[in-house]
Parts: sequence; C-alpha cells; structure tokens
Amino acid sequence: PGISKTHSPEVCLFFCFPEKKKTELCQELGLQARDLRFQHSTCLFARNNCIILRMATLKAILTPQSLMVLDFRGQGLERWLIMELAPQLASLTHTLPFEFRALEAILQHKVNTLHSRLNDVEPVILDILESLVDPKLLSADRSKLHILLQNSKSLSELETEIKVFKDSLLKILDEDEIIEELCLTKWTDPRVFEESSLGIDHAEEMELLLENFFMQAEELGNKARELKGLIDDSESVIFINLDSHRNIMMRLNLQLTMGSFSLTLFGLIGVAFGMNLTTAFEDDPRAFWLVTGFMFLGSGLIWRRLLSFLGRHLEPSVPPLIPPVWKRNLKPSDMKPGVR
Amino acid sequence: PGISKTHSPEVCLFFCFPEKKKTELCQELGLQARDLRFQHSTCLFARNNCIILRMATLKAILTPQSLMVLDFRGQGLERWLIMELAPQLASLTHTLPFEFRALEAILQHKVNTLHSRLNDVEPVILDILESLVDPKLLSADRSKLHILLQNSKSLSELETEIKVFKDSLLKILDEDEIIEELCLTKWTDPRVFEESSLGIDHAEEMELLLENFFMQAEELGNKARELKGLIDDSESVIFINLDSHRNIMMRLNLQLTMGSFSLTLFGLIGVAFGMNLTTAFEDDPRAFWLVTGFMFLGSGLIWRRLLSFLGRHLEPSVPPLIPPVWKRNLKPSDMKPGVR
Amino acid sequence: PGISKTHSPEVCLFFCFPEKKKTELCQELGLQARDLRFQHSTCLFARNNCIILRMATLKAILTPQSLMVLDFRGQGLERWLIMELAPQLASLTHTLPFEFRALEAILQHKVNTLHSRLNDVEPVILDILESLVDPKLLSADRSKLHILLQNSKSLSELETEIKVFKDSLLKILDEDEIIEELCLTKWTDPRVFEESSLGIDHAEEMELLLENFFMQAEELGNKARELKGLIDDSESVIFINLDSHRNIMMRLNLQLTMGSFSLTLFGLIGVAFGMNLTTAFEDDPRAFWLVTGFMFLGSGLIWRRLLSFLGRHLEPSVPPLIPPVWKRNLKPSDMKPGVR
Amino acid sequence: PGISKTHSPEVCLFFCFPEKKKTELCQELGLQARDLRFQHSTCLFARNNCIILRMATLKAILTPQSLMVLDFRGQGLERWLIMELAPQLASLTHTLPFEFRALEAILQHKVNTLHSRLNDVEPVILDILESLVDPKLLSADRSKLHILLQNSKSLSELETEIKVFKDSLLKILDEDEIIEELCLTKWTDPRVFEESSLGIDHAEEMELLLENFFMQAEELGNKARELKGLIDDSESVIFINLDSHRNIMMRLNLQLTMGSFSLTLFGLIGVAFGMNLTTAFEDDPRAFWLVTGFMFLGSGLIWRRLLSFLGRHLEPSVPPLIPPVWKRNLKPSDMKPGVR
Amino acid sequence: PGISKTHSPEVCLFFCFPEKKKTELCQELGLQARDLRFQHSTCLFARNNCIILRMATLKAILTPQSLMVLDFRGQGLERWLIMELAPQLASLTHTLPFEFRALEAILQHKVNTLHSRLNDVEPVILDILESLVDPKLLSADRSKLHILLQNSKSLSELETEIKVFKDSLLKILDEDEIIEELCLTKWTDPRVFEESSLGIDHAEEMELLLENFFMQAEELGNKARELKGLIDDSESVIFINLDSHRNIMMRLNLQLTMGSFSLTLFGLIGVAFGMNLTTAFEDDPRAFWLVTGFMFLGSGLIWRRLLSFLGRHLEPSVPPLIPPVWKRNLKPSDMKPGVR
Repeated sequence: PGISKTHSPEVCLFFCFPEKKKTELCQELGLQARDLRFQHSTCLFARNNCIILRMATLKAILTPQSLMVLDFRGQGLERWLIMELAPQLASLTHTLPFEFRALEAILQHKVNTLHSRLNDVEPVILDILESLVDPKLLSADRSKLHILLQNSKSLSELETEIKVFKDSLLKILDEDEIIEELCLTKWTDPRVFEESSLGIDHAEEMELLLENFFMQAEELGNKARELKGLIDDSESVIFINLDSHRNIMMRLNLQLTMGSFSLTLFGLIGVAFGMNLTTAFEDDPRAFWLVTGFMFLGSGLIWRRLLSFLGRHLEPSVPPLIPPVWKRNLKPSDMKPGVR
Repeated sequence: PGISKTHSPEVCLFFCFPEKKKTELCQELGLQARDLRFQHSTCLFARNNCIILRMATLKAILTPQSLMVLDFRGQGLERWLIMELAPQLASLTHTLPFEFRALEAILQHKVNTLHSRLNDVEPVILDILESLVDPKLLSADRSKLHILLQNSKSLSELETEIKVFKDSLLKILDEDEIIEELCLTKWTDPRVFEESSLGIDHAEEMELLLENFFMQAEELGNKARELKGLIDDSESVIFINLDSHRNIMMRLNLQLTMGSFSLTLFGLIGVAFGMNLTTAFEDDPRAFWLVTGFMFLGSGLIWRRLLSFLGRHLEPSVPPLIPPVWKRNLKPSDMKPGVR
Repeated sequence: PGISKTHSPEVCLFFCFPEKKKTELCQELGLQARDLRFQHSTCLFARNNCIILRMATLKAILTPQSLMVLDFRGQGLERWLIMELAPQLASLTHTLPFEFRALEAILQHKVNTLHSRLNDVEPVILDILESLVDPKLLSADRSKLHILLQNSKSLSELETEIKVFKDSLLKILDEDEIIEELCLTKWTDPRVFEESSLGIDHAEEMELLLENFFMQAEELGNKARELKGLIDDSESVIFINLDSHRNIMMRLNLQLTMGSFSLTLFGLIGVAFGMNLTTAFEDDPRAFWLVTGFMFLGSGLIWRRLLSFLGRHLEPSVPPLIPPVWKRNLKPSDMKPGVR
Repeated sequence: PGISKTHSPEVCLFFCFPEKKKTELCQELGLQARDLRFQHSTCLFARNNCIILRMATLKAILTPQSLMVLDFRGQGLERWLIMELAPQLASLTHTLPFEFRALEAILQHKVNTLHSRLNDVEPVILDILESLVDPKLLSADRSKLHILLQNSKSLSELETEIKVFKDSLLKILDEDEIIEELCLTKWTDPRVFEESSLGIDHAEEMELLLENFFMQAEELGNKARELKGLIDDSESVIFINLDSHRNIMMRLNLQLTMGSFSLTLFGLIGVAFGMNLTTAFEDDPRAFWLVTGFMFLGSGLIWRRLLSFLGRHLEPSVPPLIPPVWKRNLKPSDMKPGVR
Repeated sequence: PGISKTHSPEVCLFFCFPEKKKTELCQELGLQARDLRFQHSTCLFARNNCIILRMATLKAILTPQSLMVLDFRGQGLERWLIMELAPQLASLTHTLPFEFRALEAILQHKVNTLHSRLNDVEPVILDILESLVDPKLLSADRSKLHILLQNSKSLSELETEIKVFKDSLLKILDEDEIIEELCLTKWTDPRVFEESSLGIDHAEEMELLLENFFMQAEELGNKARELKGLIDDSESVIFINLDSHRNIMMRLNLQLTMGSFSLTLFGLIGVAFGMNLTTAFEDDPRAFWLVTGFMFLGSGLIWRRLLSFLGRHLEPSVPPLIPPVWKRNLKPSDMKPGVR
C-alpha cells in the first residue's frame, strides 16, 4: 500500500503559470536562476530533486508530485495539455511513480511531434519525386522543383532536430549517475528506496524508458536519411532522363540537318539552271525531268549515305567482345544456413 | 549425464499461440506488460530468465525449455516454422542447451532473410547497370531507370535494416552482463553452473554465437555498400557516355552547318544571276559553266577551310609538352616481404 | 561574508598592457615562456593557477583577481573591452568567483562573434539561392554565383572555426582534472575549498558553464551544416532547371528545323520549275496555282507528320502500366503513442 | 640453449592434408567442430593452444610445432606453399618461436596479395584516366570508360577486403587477452614462460607483429582511397572538358547560324528580283551590280552586327570591379618554427 | 648545476653515418634488428632508452646524448641538417634535456615540410580556380584543368600524409606509458628523476610538446580540407556557368532559327513566282512591290509572333504567388548574450 500511496492521484498536481516569477519559482524549489534559463532548444536534467526539461516550445519542471509547464501560451500546446496530458497523468494504470508517467508523456509528445512532421514532409516529397522521374517528361516541372526544395529543407531541419534529441538522450544514457538523479521518488520516498533493493529498480526502469524513446528517434532518423537518399537517387535519374531526351532530340535534329544539307546541295543545281545564262539545254524537253530527277534522287541518296554514316559514327570502336563489367559474384552457396 | 538431460529433446517444447492473452503470458512467465509490447522492429533482451526477441515479423519468447512464437499468422512464417525451425530445435546433434539452438535458428533465419533480399535486388541492379553503361547506347532506356530507382530504394531500406540488426547485436556484445543474462540454462540448472567453472563457459559460447551473426550481417552490409557504390560509379559513366555522344553529334551537326553555310553563300551568286536584271553575260555560253563551277568549287573550298578551322579551334592552346598528370608512384619496392 | 569578499569588486582588477614584456609577465605569474606563445588560434588551459586563453585575436591571462588582455590593439577589440567586458566583470550580480565571470564573458564574446559571422553570411546566401532557383530564369546570373562562392567559402571557414572551438572545449570537458584546474579560486581561497564540500561545487559549475557554450557552438555548427546542405540541394535544382529549359528550347528548335526541312524539300519543286528548261507547263494558267499549292500544302503536311513522329519518338517504350516507384510506407499506425 | 631448442628446426613440421577428416582433426587437437567451420572470409583466433586462421582461400591451423594448411588444392596456393612458405618456416635466423614465424609468413602473404591486387588495378586506372582527361579529346572513349568501371569495381572490392583485414587485426589488438592467447609457446614451454619475466615478452612481440601488418594494411587502404578520390576528381575534369568543347562548338554553330540568317535575309531580295514580275529595273545594266552588291554587303554587315551582339550578350552584367573570390590567406608567418 | 651538466652542450653529440652497419648499431645501442627496419613512412617509438623515428626520408636514432641520422644522403636533407638542426641542438637556451630539443627540431622540420608543401599547392589552386570561375569565360581553359587535377592529386596525398602524421602522434598521446618511455633522460639521470617529483615533470612536458605538433598538424589538415571543399564548390559554379552560357547561346540560336524559318516560309512565295509558269500578274507593275513587301513583312510578323511565343513558352506554369523557399530563420534574439 505504501507505493500506491506515493503515486496516488491526489498528489498528481498539475498547474501551469506563466505569471509566476521565475525568481519565486527558484526559491520555492531550491533551484538557481541559471537552471531556469532554458537556453538550448532541447534539454533534460535533474537539479535538487526536480527534473527541468525543454523540448522546443515545451518548458517544464517536474517534481515528485507535480508537473509545471512554463510559458505554454501561444505555442499551440494548450490542446495537448488539456486533452491528452492531463488524463494521461491522472490515469492509475501506471505502476510507476509520477515522474515516470510525466516524463513518458512529454517524451512521447516530442517523438509524436517529430513523427508527424516527417509524415507531413514525406508524402509531398514522394509525390513530387514520382512525378519528376516520370520517363515521359521532356523537362522537369520547375514549380515542383521549388516545392521539393522547400520540403528538402524542412527534412534537413527535422534531421537536425532528431539528432539533437537523440544526443540529449544519449548523454543521459551514457552516465548512470544522471539516470539515478532522474528517479526523483527513489530519493524522497524511503519506502521506495528500500524496495528498490528487492524488486523493481527505478534506475533500470528509467533507462528502459529513455532507451525506448532513443530507439524511436533512431527509427525516425533512419527514415529521414532514407528519404534524403531517395531524393539524391531520383535527381540522378532525372538528370539521365533529361540527358537522354536531349540526345534523342539531337539525333533527330542531326538527321534533319543532313536532309536539309542534301537538299541545299542539290538545290544549287536548280539555282544554277535558274540563272539567266545560256546553257544549251534550254530547249531539250527531257532536260527538265533529268535535272529535276537528279536533284531529288541525288539529295535522297546523299541523305541516306549521311544517315548510315551517322549510324556507324555513333557506335564506338569497341572490340567485338567486351566482357561484361561484372559477373555475378554473390552465390547462394557463399553463406548457407550453418547448422551448429 | 546431467547436462545431456538438461537439453534432452523431451524438454524441447514448442508451441505457438496467438490466442493466448498477453496478460496471462506475463503472469505465467513473471514478465511485465511493457516487456511484451515489441515496439521496435528489432529487439533482443532477457527478462526474468526469458529471452524476448523480435526480428521484423517474428516475435518470440524463449524460456530454457520452450520457444513461443507470437502473432505468427499471416506473416509468411508458417512454412519456416514447420519445415525448418521444428526439426532444427528437435535435433540432438547440438551439444549446447536449448536456448542456444533456438537463438541460432532464429538469428540464422533473420540473416537468411536479409541475404535473400539482397540476392533478389543485386542481379536486377547488375543487369540494368550492365545494359545502361553499354557504350553503344545513345540514350538511357528510361523504363530501366525506373526499375533501377525502385531497386536502389529497396537496397537503401535493406541497408538500414542490416544496420539496425548489427546495432542491436553490438549493444549486447558490448556488455558482458547482458550476454550472461542470455545464458538462461546457466542460471536455472545448478549443474551447468558448476561445470561452467571447469570446461565450457556458456557466456563465451553465447558471445561467439552472436559475434558470428554480427559478422555475417557485416558481410551483407559490405556487399550492399559496394552495390551502392557501383550504382554511383555507373551513373557517372552513363553521364560521360551521354555527353560524349552529344559532343560527337554536335560536331557532325556543326560540320554540316558549315557545309550548308558555304552552299548558301555561293548559292547567293546563283540567285543573283537568276534575277531578271541585265548582266551582259546572258549570251556568253561559257558563263553558265564558269559561274556554276565557281559556285560549287567555292562552297567546297570554303567548307574545307571551315572544317580545318574547326579542327584547330577545338584543340586547346596547350603547351606542346604537358607532363602527365601522375607518374606511377606505387613501386613494388615500397613494401617488400619483410623477413623478421 | 567570506565568499562575498573573495569576489568583491575591489579585487576585480582589469588592466591591459601590450607594452609589458612577456618575460616580466612570466616571472610575475610564475609561468614559463612557452605558456605565453599562443601558437594555436584557439586555446584554453590552466598553468600555475592562471588560466591562459586565446580566442582568435583575443589573448588573455586570467588570475583569481584580474584579467589581463594582451596585444589587443588594432584588433577591433577595444570597443568590446570597454563597453561590454568591463561592466560585465564589475557587476555584482554574479554569485560565483571572478574567474567564472571573466571566462563566461570571453566565451560568450567568442560565441557571439561566431554567431554574428553566421548571421552575416546566411541572409546573403539565402537571397542568392532564392534568386538562382527562380524557375523563370533561363540562365544563372553569373555575378551572383561569384558572390555565392565567396560566401560559401566564408561558411567553410566558419565551420572549421566552430569545430576547432568545440574541440577545444570538448578536450576540457573530457578530463575532470583540467576542469578542476580551471577553478582558480577553489585552490587559493581555503574558505571556498571548505564550502565546496557542503554546497556549491566549483568544478561542477565550471563544467556547466563550459557545456553551455559547447552546446551553443553545436547549435551554430548545426545551422552552418544545414546551410551547406541547402546550397548543395539548390545547386541540384538549378541544374535541373537549366537542363529543363534547354530541353524545351531544343524541342522548339527541332520543331522549327522540321518546318524548315519541309519547306526546303518542297521549295526544291519551285526551284526546279524556276530553271530555264522546257517543262511543257509554261503556258498552262492553272499550273502555277497547282504547283504553288502543292508546295505549301505538301510542306505543311510533311511538317505535321514530322511533328507527330517527334511526339511519338520522345515517349519511351514503357509498358503501359508501370508500378509507382514507391508506395507510401510510413503508416501512422507504425508508431503510436505507447501508453505504458 | 633452452630457447634455441624450443624453436629448433626439427619441430618445424609442415603438412597439408585435405584428405583428413575435420572430425579427426578436432579430436586430435582438442578443438570443437564449430572452430573449423571457417564461415567468414577473414578470421584469426586461438582455441585450446592452436591458432586457427583463414585469409580468403588460405585456411590453416597453427600449433606450437606445426602448421597445417587445409583445403589448399585448386586455390593457386601450391606455388607459394612450396616455394616461399616452406623455406621461410625452416629458416633459423628468426629468434622467435615457430608460431611467430608462421603467422608472419601468412600475414605477409595476405598483405602481399592485397598489394599486388592494388598494383594490378592502379596502373590501368591511371592510364585510362590520363587518356580520358586529355584536353584534346572531344568525346570520351567509351570502351575505356567500360574498363575504368571494371577496375573501379575491383578497387571497391579491394577496399572492402582491406577494411575487413584491418578490422580483424584491430579486434585482436584491442584486447590484450587475445594477444596473450596467440603466444602459443609461452603457455606450453615453461622455460619461455619464466624468461618472459626477464627479457623478451612474447605478448609484446606479438603485438608489434600484428601492429606492423595493421599499418601495412592501413597504407594500402590510404592508397586505395586516394585512387578513388582521383577517379572522382578526374570525372569532374572530364565533365568540364566535355562541356567546354560543347560550348565552343555551340558558339561556332551560333556564329554560322547568324551568317546563314544574314544570307537568307538578303538572298530574299535576289529571290524577289528573280520573280517573273515587272520591276522597271530589267534593262538597267547597273541594277544587277547594285542589287548583287547590296545583297552581299548587306548580309556581311548584318552578320558582323550579330557577331558583335553575341560577344556583348555572352558577357554577363557584372560590375566592373569584382573582388577576387579569395585572397591568399595562408601567410608564411602564420606558423613559424617555434624555438622552444 | 646538476641539471645544467646533464644537458650541457658537450654531451650534445651529433654524427651521421650511412656507412656504419645496422648490425653494429644494434649491438652498440642494445636494439634488435627489426627496430631499425623503418618499414612505415612515419614512425616514432622508444626502445631500450633510445627513440627511433622516421619522418618520410628522415630516419634517426635519438639517445639521451646524441642524435644519429641514418641514410640521409641524396634526400635533400643535408642543408637542413647543417644549417638548421646543428645550431638548434647546440643552443643553450633550452631548459629541457637533449631529447626534447632534438625531438622538437625534427617534428618542427616535419610540420614545416608539410606546411611548405601546402603553401606550394594552395596559391596554384586558388589562381586556377579564380580564373576558371570567371563568369566571362565561355569554356574552361582545359590546360588549367590539367594543372588543377595535378595539384588536386598532390593535395590528396598531402592530406593522407598529414593524417598519418596525426595518427602516429595520437597513438602516443593516447598512452601515458609511451610518453614516459620517450623521456629518456628521466630514466638515465637519477637527479632528474628526483626533481621530477618536485618541479617540472618530464612526461607532462613531452605531452605538451607532442600535443603542440598534433595541433599544428590539425590546423594544416583543416586548411587542406577547406581547400578540397573549395575545389568542389568551384566546380559546381563552373558547371552552372557553362550551362548558363549554353542556355543563352541556345536561346539566341533558337531566335535565329525562328527568323530563318520565317524567311524560308515567305521566300517560298518568291520561289513560286520565280517559276517559269504563267501567273497573270507578269505585267502588273505593282505586283512586284506587293509580293516583295508581303514576303518581307510577312516573315517579319511571323518571326515576331514566334519570338513572343518563345518568351511565353519558357516561363513555367507557376502559380502567380510562390512563397519563397525559405524564410529567414536565424533571428538575433535566438541566442543572446546570457548574463549569468
């Protein structure tokens, strides 16, 4: 019954006061002024049996019996505070002391925020990439590139934030002392202290809790990194696509230029016969058909020769048999299920 | 005879029940609810003399005498469970306790899954790259690029999964305590405990087992990284290929433009003589041949000059003797077999 | 009263003398010549109960009662020394000894310098990138590229400097001994020494102070890295933009070349009829309209066929139904708020 | 005399038997079946006073008196075994026990193999790069690109193998226990054990030996990495080369297009006068020369204007004085030889 | 007086002998043959109260009283040995024993060599990059690219060498034992040994000395890395420059092609009227001017329409108001000078 009383709901106080002066707060809790400066966007540490933490806009002080949220107005936190945090803290299903419940609720909120931001960015990026790598497109839609760049920037910022969150948890996980300090009830409630030598160890529970969120953040980080990689890979494919289109157009252009050249060359004969000069063929009725036929046939033949020359020219002077670049080198026998 | 009894086949129980409630399971095995939450895709830890593990879709609890697979339906695991896992667990050739056999079977299954996924992706990627870097191609086949991108994405996901698997093994290998905890039989069977001071040390065996799978995962990771590098290298080669093709076509185009220009220039003479204006050459019978010859010869000569100009123009103004960029700097004498 | 006397303002001496010889200084403070060589751009260490530090142009020696700034002339430090540092050191609000106040003022100055340099570079880079990725631009403004390159270089230098600053702090934070040495007052004032066993621990305060600046530098480093990433991403977008523009122009060019080809081809008929040769149609009044109509209609029809051929040619031979490259694979159910 | 007997040549046994069963071998040497499984391509560990190692195709068991090479047939090792390994093991110049001689010979063989593979790949890559970056080339020789890609792939595989070799040595160097275990003679020959407290320490010798090969592998790794970097740098240069060629050709093309345009424009006048329409100039003998001269002069002038317009157009609108991107910022006075 | 005698100049012997046999040397100094093998390009270790070191071409053995330089002929070291090293070793200003003076001179020589190599490479690279990123250039000067590639290769080699030098110092700095061994005099001169417990600690001095050179090497490494980054950034700018030029030329080309097309189209009318066919306009004196005017005016109008179509076509279909890609997100208020 001892423990159940320690984290009974009546001690689960919950008040938020942006009005109270920080100095008063310091005196009340025995903290120092610098402890409540919240200079870094993410911090989590214990001082004088209080946990002081900041997760972006959420600044809070956690004592063994209460959670105080500071400066929460205008941060879009109200809904979460009232709709989710309050019931979670009041719930009795949790078998661990109050600071565990509060810390878990806050860290979960942080991870959920990160997760929802990744969820906002990911489908937009996937949609845009999907449409940009479409092999039918001759040119990239440049307004989509704009949106891609915006989302790619958001993704970088998200990656940094995940990294900062992971680092701040890792710093705690690396030092057992800090974990011990975070177990507030262990030091205030002697009964818990005694029990800890028998059954549940609070420090170990705290480590599991923090590790759990560390791994969730790691998974988010992995997803963000994969998405970054996908953007890079897609850009390469876009470039190859655009280059390929260009090469095809250039070959068509070249083929037409060959045709125009042939026509111009043989058209010169027509121009020559069009000159107001004496040619001795003027009255030959077959001359017209001969010269005209020669012009059209000649340019056609020259064009055909040029086209076949182009075909040969573009094929590189490779030896007839190039070995393939790589042979299959991952044989199923390389690694077989070892029966020990 | 003591040990042989400890891991005799009759204790090798094996049942799978997705029906049983988790709460019952917890009570039965003395676990806590959060131990069976399986929040992360890969986890492996010991609690209250049970090993709880999850490898993607496979969730299992391992006690010294039994292996329980949870929620295995609809995951495509049935075949493996019945055809491979059951006989492996029942086999008597293994000299180590049951938890070793079970853990090895599961980890081997995980590594085999990763390996077969790499084996699915690799030949497709190699085939596509082989056809994309073909020097004869003027443009990259864009539907192949599409498939390459899909497989490249699968490869990234596989890399992440291998990394997560390696990290979870490494976390165990780094802490001797956790390895000790994984040796379930050591703590339950006093005879094994006594023996361990003499001959086989269970903790060392467990370390070897985990290290073995860690190294298998490392090899898979190396292969995946090489494949990624190969994609990058091939893309560079594809770009150079496409650029080279383009340059060749552009030179041909330029040469033809030069020809057309020459023809147009001298064709102007023909056009001039075609005007209905008095030229005083109208009746000279040689004039036609002279002017026509001048037109064709002149354009031919100008073209030839332009072509040779192009040839000179494209050669850069390099000093006649550029030293080669690099001299051979790896001499066989640099590193000779040292006879100690 | 004891402590307040220790860091009472009267002992807070502050003199700067570039004239004094280094050798005199060494004798006075019991330092060695090499301690005052300041070879590296960033250093911070304790010798013989003095803290010797250099932050770029600022070289200083810190004793428990005084701060001496060396060689400060012509470095643009005068303003800061007189306007900011002096009042900060003289302020009485600080409850910690003099060396804490001085160290904090100097490190804060360093971080502020780094921060203001990042603030100088960032808006320029963002402005230039914003105008370079403008999808309407056909070609990048090359004078802007020049400025981008200059700022990108400054950013690299800033990144190096942040890294060097972080490394020098990290070296101290990693060794508790060095932190102890930095707490000058602890070793000189016995009353402080005694107290430290009771209340405030100086070494811990020093660690917090250094850690605070380390994290500020880390945040700056994160921002600089994000900015670098943004430049890279924007360059990719610029390349895709330029390539897309080129492809569009090339298609237009190709379409016109097709038109010119058609006109030249059918113009040849006109040229043929312009020859001074007998055609038997000379006197047919309908012949002119027939041939002219044939020329224009024929070239129009050929052009249309060529254009539709181009349209078909640019569409790759893809199977009608390509699966999308990626399916959405981040489901909201993957990671739900875990209620413990 | 004691030591010299310990590693006298008569104990230097050397037999290779792929025929012997592994199970027999295990019984003979007191090993377990799994110790001889050789699952990983590179391994080196000690079990029951034997060193078991595998270096790619070479699998060997090393006891204090003998070296057994397993499965050596068809691996191309015969020559090395007979011509090099046997004499090296039999030589008496070595002052250290047999296992040192054998281990050194095998590791040296491994490093030599890696080195010769790098030596095979490097000159080919350098030759190809040298010819590809040749500034005279308009297009990259695509069969050379093919060979480059093959060698680049071999280089990646070599890098992985060097990394695996280094990692396996590092794992041993990091744990003094394993090094001790590798000193077989120390544990079998009591005289050596005693001596070790006086003069030569076997464990230290073993560490030096392994460290030596680790550093040789590191040098190879550095060379491979430099080569990779060189390929990347060369590819950038190739791209700039190809792009530059293209720009030059495009300018020439544009200049010719300008010429053709001028000729077409003024040729239209000729065409106009060639029409069978009344112009009132028909009989003016000067008209022909005037119009012809106007056509040629006019097109020449227009061409010239277009060319100068092109020249101006390509120069960007830069302010007249751009500061250079970077000033020299490495002054010799920054770092002067410090006289301590 | 005791110490001053220990490092008095008369014991400062200095001889270099490439003639002496290594075996003699080994016997004389009590070293083993393998200690003098100098297999790696950079090494520094203590054996039997001698420091054996190699820095590229400089191989030396350092005893408490002498420095022996081995194989120094033909390495370009003579000048440094005679002009700089000898006086530095003989100087009496140094208060520390001989091995400190010698080690400092040699390490300083190494760092100076690295520094001068960086100083050779840097201005060349900066000059070339400066001229290559010149926005006025249409094409990169390809002989400069060649030189850039050579210097970029030298830079990579220099980076590797700095890394190797840093690693070899770091290996010593990480183990206090090795630092102790390097303090030769401490172990030979009992008076120094006694003193060390009082005043100056040799091991600490040695650590400071090595750390100093480590940081100098780090600064060089940072500079080399920045230079590498600058090459990469410049290459991107060069590519954007070349691409922009190409786009501008392509637009000009396209505009001219449009003009030529218009002229060809309307020239066809002229060609039609040039045919020897009856048109009924032959004798109309206004017909010539009407048709000619229609030709010129028509082609002019069509050209204008085509140009305005091009202008519209190149503008992407962006919504009128795209939000800028990034808003300023580094506010000065984010990080303000914290007054503690």
